[in-house]
Amino acid sequence: MSISDTVNHQVILSSRPVGIPQAEHFELSEAPIPEPKDGEFLVRNKFLSVDPAMRGWTNAAKNYSEPVAIGDVMRAITAGEVIASKHPDYAEGDLVVGTLGWQEYGIGNGSEIRFKVPKMDVPLSAFLGILGSNGITAYFGLLTHGEPKAGETVVVSTAAGAVGSAVGQIAKIKGCRTVGLTGSDDKVEFCKSEFGYDEAINYKTADLDAALKAACPDGVDVYFDNTSGSITDTVYNNLAIGARCVVCGTASISVWDPLPTGPRVERTLLVKRARIQGLYVFDFEDQWGAAQKDLCQWFEEGKLNYREDILDGLEHAPGSIQRLYDGENQGKLLIEI
Amino acid sequence: MSISDTVNHQVILSSRPVGIPQAEHFELSEAPIPEPKDGEFLVRNKFLSVDPAMRGWTNAAKNYSEPVAIGDVMRAITAGEVIASKHPDYAEGDLVVGTLGWQEYGIGNGSEIRFKVPKMDVPLSAFLGILGSNGITAYFGLLTHGEPKAGETVVVSTAAGAVGSAVGQIAKIKGCRTVGLTGSDDKVEFCKSEFGYDEAINYKTADLDAALKAACPDGVDVYFDNTSGSITDTVYNNLAIGARCVVCGTASISVWDPLPTGPRVERTLLVKRARIQGLYVFDFEDQWGAAQKDLCQWFEEGKLNYREDILDGLEHAPGSIQRLYDGENQGKLLIEI
Repeated sequence: MSISDTVNHQVILSSRPVGIPQAEHFELSEAPIPEPKDGEFLVRNKFLSVDPAMRGWTNAAKNYSEPVAIGDVMRAITAGEVIASKHPDYAEGDLVVGTLGWQEYGIGNGSEIRFKVPKMDVPLSAFLGILGSNGITAYFGLLTHGEPKAGETVVVSTAAGAVGSAVGQIAKIKGCRTVGLTGSDDKVEFCKSEFGYDEAINYKTADLDAALKAACPDGVDVYFDNTSGSITDTVYNNLAIGARCVVCGTASISVWDPLPTGPRVERTLLVKRARIQGLYVFDFEDQWGAAQKDLCQWFEEGKLNYREDILDGLEHAPGSIQRLYDGENQGKLLIEI
Repeated sequence: MSISDTVNHQVILSSRPVGIPQAEHFELSEAPIPEPKDGEFLVRNKFLSVDPAMRGWTNAAKNYSEPVAIGDVMRAITAGEVIASKHPDYAEGDLVVGTLGWQEYGIGNGSEIRFKVPKMDVPLSAFLGILGSNGITAYFGLLTHGEPKAGETVVVSTAAGAVGSAVGQIAKIKGCRTVGLTGSDDKVEFCKSEFGYDEAINYKTADLDAALKAACPDGVDVYFDNTSGSITDTVYNNLAIGARCVVCGTASISVWDPLPTGPRVERTLLVKRARIQGLYVFDFEDQWGAAQKDLCQWFEEGKLNYREDILDGLEHAPGSIQRLYDGENQGKLLIEI
């Protein structure tokens, strides 16, 4: 798909999925490029983000946000450049990260902008991942809910993913031992070589319980959970006294209505004096700036590596959410347009 | 059973139960009354406590404490009087609460004493309940883990029980709305009349989900959980954003090995940004004195009511643990000897 100067190419939600959205639930569409009114500005999106939260946005079940309406442009986090402005705070040339959706051009009024990209010699795409919502999610989930102390053992599921890899690295910065759970030997390797995990386990081929006992002889102090399901059940079987478990995502379970069953957690929490806490990064929105400042500093110090999996062209958007769940993508999944 | 001056009547654990201990798992026994050595003292027990924790103490499964060995005196919290002492800190006439077991006479060296009973015009038995471990458990579970704020809605399971009734009353002292869950219309009535609950629900006869929605129109901010099981699942279906759930006990489930299954909690915790945390009151042991001071003050101000269910004589001990689970006892269960 080529960039058009007159047409705004878009991806709309055409039917409501149950579970993980597939390509068939979306349609490519066209609209005129909108004109900013007073108090608005026009953004040319450069990168579109693909995130697990989009599953929730497409489903009708209760969640953080209103579902995307059928026929609407798919909600998505975007990074782009202001190319026309009638807003006093946004100037042509400003780079912005916001929620402008799966489309080439979006109109903003400021409310949908998450942040202006700071002037740094860093690729714009990093602000959709390690220096954007993924890094910020990792930051608050680990530091505020997980409360890691130096010397403790932090276990991360989807350890090589966009959030997980940031969690593992921030935990190392805080002096923890890190153990990553991931789904291939290749990912095990780069968990250790690129993201600094002390240990990494391929949960698909290992005896996970035995491997966790070997990797965490004193138990798991902090568990950053991106998966739920049997991986999580096995980690819960290995918690240390006083463990803190952070629920950030539930990637291993595709349908939550009705609630799936699993081992009850109450006795484990009681015996281990442990806690499980759900994370919603927007609850920390007023502190994002401070978090991003730390992340940018660590990034410049070379302490935060990241991987990207960039699809070229808007036509790849419809099938991209599924890609988050099939274990194939290696790093932050983005669409460049 | 009469008090003997030469014989120490005891209850020993004679076989290992699976699940809730029954009378058949214990035997009455006799031993000589022990003599205190240097650094020791002899206590004549007056009241023996019957607590849900005793289930864990009798079972072989992993728990907080070492299991009681077969043939040993059953571990129990006791209140009694020092009647002979070769210990500088304990004098004849001191009243003490400790873990001296299901027996008439116990030897202490200080390590098994939880506290000396303060000089107050209060029945000794209250220091095994509302002013002892039950009140202290309620205090830390509610205030430290539950973090209730004035105006919030606090839901308590086993609301009329020794811990639950204290939780409800402390929550009222802190300005919360309180909703009690209990198992009979009689208990519903005295939850409201004696323990000040704003609402009380008989979970055995009500449609609990509908009743909770009616009693908690803005959702449940704090859930103090003494039951686990389907009551807990239904409360989790009614959590408010940011809810704090405290796991104090699991009375509705008798066997935890293997772990029973229930609805998975991860998605609920994520969507509600809620947490579940297990409570072990001994983690706060260094702060018990301060808690007891608050409890005694509230008690003297008439803000803490309590009920006792006192069985007369050591021969009632073996069958007493079961009584905690059959819904019959109304208030703190004790054996007076």
